Amino acid sequence: MANFTLLKDLIQPAKTRIVLLVMDGLGGLPRPSDDQTELEAARTPNLDRLAREGCLGQHYPVDVGITSGSGPGHLGLFGYDPIQYEIGRGVLEAVGIGFPLTGRDVCARGNFCSLDAAGNISDRRAGRIPTETCAALVKKINAANIKVADGVEVFVEPVQDYRFVVVMRGDGLSGAIDETDPQRTGVPPLQAVARDAASARTAELFNQWIKAASAVIANDHPANGMTLRGFATDPALPKYKDVYGLKAGVIAIYPMYRGVASLVGMDVIDHHAHSVAEEFEAAARVWSDYDFLFVHVKYTDSRGEDGNFDAKMKVIEEVDAALPALLALKPDVLVVTGDHSTPSQLKSHSWHPVPLLLWAPATVRRDRSPSFGERTSARGGLGTFHAADIMPLALAHAGRLAKFGA
Amino acid sequence: MANFTLLKDLIQPAKTRIVLLVMDGLGGLPRPSDDQTELEAARTPNLDRLAREGCLGQHYPVDVGITSGSGPGHLGLFGYDPIQYEIGRGVLEAVGIGFPLTGRDVCARGNFCSLDAAGNISDRRAGRIPTETCAALVKKINAANIKVADGVEVFVEPVQDYRFVVVMRGDGLSGAIDETDPQRTGVPPLQAVARDAASARTAELFNQWIKAASAVIANDHPANGMTLRGFATDPALPKYKDVYGLKAGVIAIYPMYRGVASLVGMDVIDHHAHSVAEEFEAAARVWSDYDFLFVHVKYTDSRGEDGNFDAKMKVIEEVDAALPALLALKPDVLVVTGDHSTPSQLKSHSWHPVPLLLWAPATVRRDRSPSFGERTSARGGLGTFHAADIMPLALAHAGRLAKFGA
Repeated sequence: MANFTLLKDLIQPAKTRIVLLVMDGLGGLPRPSDDQTELEAARTPNLDRLAREGCLGQHYPVDVGITSGSGPGHLGLFGYDPIQYEIGRGVLEAVGIGFPLTGRDVCARGNFCSLDAAGNISDRRAGRIPTETCAALVKKINAANIKVADGVEVFVEPVQDYRFVVVMRGDGLSGAIDETDPQRTGVPPLQAVARDAASARTAELFNQWIKAASAVIANDHPANGMTLRGFATDPALPKYKDVYGLKAGVIAIYPMYRGVASLVGMDVIDHHAHSVAEEFEAAARVWSDYDFLFVHVKYTDSRGEDGNFDAKMKVIEEVDAALPALLALKPDVLVVTGDHSTPSQLKSHSWHPVPLLLWAPATVRRDRSPSFGERTSARGGLGTFHAADIMPLALAHAGRLAKFGA
Repeated sequence: MANFTLLKDLIQPAKTRIVLLVMDGLGGLPRPSDDQTELEAARTPNLDRLAREGCLGQHYPVDVGITSGSGPGHLGLFGYDPIQYEIGRGVLEAVGIGFPLTGRDVCARGNFCSLDAAGNISDRRAGRIPTETCAALVKKINAANIKVADGVEVFVEPVQDYRFVVVMRGDGLSGAIDETDPQRTGVPPLQAVARDAASARTAELFNQWIKAASAVIANDHPANGMTLRGFATDPALPKYKDVYGLKAGVIAIYPMYRGVASLVGMDVIDHHAHSVAEEFEAAARVWSDYDFLFVHVKYTDSRGEDGNFDAKMKVIEEVDAALPALLALKPDVLVVTGDHSTPSQLKSHSWHPVPLLLWAPATVRRDRSPSFGERTSARGGLGTFHAADIMPLALAHAGRLAKFGA
């Protein structure tokens, strides 16, 4: 991880602006036909120009050989050791919808599911009900006003499709609890089971709540049941303002990325973007209010997971085509990278290092890379490094770090 | 930092000789006209030949993104973690003039300054008086034989120009004391103020001494006052002989570099060199007495800080032209690098990685680098690494490290 103690001593104010543009799952593998990855095959005149004017490298989000999930991958990009700081899925979902967490909260991600007459799960995602149906179910559960114990409050919020979030608030609650999703159909949901003594009472309260809430929706086919996953409490991460001296904001279409960014103290920028171009428009609107903007592009990863090389390539081309609007804002430092690799050939996240482009017209040592791709990045001037080095590099190139020692 | 515990087990004797040739602030940025850095633009037939016969890489003296001062930069080159081992400026000045420090000493760097009739500083450097004037003032102060307390001795030595060093020796002294230089004119020097309780008495003794010594020179215009900075005690660094098994010497024109080298146990080689060629002559004179020579070239950094691209380039060319005399000594390992980057475009130290050339005719894996420059080094066979790796590399190529494990 970034050496926060050292950085804190060296942080100096500046008027410079940094943009971290993350194409989720950017890294790929070459296809046999022409030995090009998605990034290399994509027509990216703007990224290639930035590569020629900047400096490339490749990074490991967590560690060499480790395939990273999206949460740890982003923590790595933000300079936090993802092994030291674990963020439960429940917390990510809660902060992703802007739920104001406190230190007394245990969060869980909920999935509405379909139960058959015997109470066994017939569809773990309840036929992927639309978000509106999810919201109506949550409203119904909230209307039932379920009480689990004196001094304990329960908040339920819809997220997207069949997903919702449950937050239990009270003194002495703890989140070491196994998920209730059996991960297969034909069996009933599991009981919430505590993994340690401190979480026993919390697990019991969740079981009470699940029973009562499930009864409320028992006749709401296809979403007539639920499972809870990712029980977790706020990991209390150091904040961007404190460790980097940056007023930071996140622009992301997917809740989870807003969530992880808000955990490190980034403001969640309000927007209605549905495309990269609209995300950049949102960046333009708040440009003068922030030192640092994290802009997240989801669909590179989604198309990689679909195994669709051409579609992932097209998302990269969409980013490239939209770039001039971002560059028109004149960031002092622009970092373009991914949070992990998602080669479409593997249809999943992978451990391969992630290409990175650092552009900083006033201060970068150009490395004469001809274009932005995995292989040019592997030979780039920044070498191969851990993602934790990205923030110190960005701060340095933005003139935000004083000299160390005489 | 280098893993001293591991190395100590592996160190084996050898008759090989290692030279670490440091061009201070070597790393640069490309100029727009031809996209060449100072090192790349310089005519360096000898360095380029060594590059073709050797192996290149680039290193971070302290850490990624960190701009290093000269002290930490050299500690990094020597294999010591500059974050763990901080060396105060006073200690650097004292050891730089060959003052034999003990564990009971607190050192401070002194500046003679000019005071006006009201006692306010009118020139923080006393018109940059010549070293001879400085020496005369110190002699006068020493003749006054100022006593501050029983059992406490004070040593005063001239350094260069308006700079001198004060060493206070006694039991229970401590150096956590703020400088007395207000860093501006029009105000009087500050009192020495302790930053912790353990240093309170020492600060008081320094205040007494400053008062008495200032009285001695009160009529010596323009140097009729003084400020003290960089209060510090010997950081007790592990020594080269112990951690690397090397009898080591330093050849440097500037005192500070002799100072930091002597703190790691290098002998300060007596010489009257004023040029790189003369430094290499000094190396030739002591060649058979040492396993390891650190040769320091100052003016690459100075010209970089001046913002003078051509002048920095010329210093590099001077080094290159002098190289045959060093090579005639037939070192087994020659490392050529810098302690940090000082791009003339930035007129200051910077965080950019530092190019490094490793030449070891008997043992190096040539990497087919065509020449010595920042961009060839970034793509060199040694990759991108921390400066702490340099000493293990040098020892290995010199046949001075045994195999680890069976």
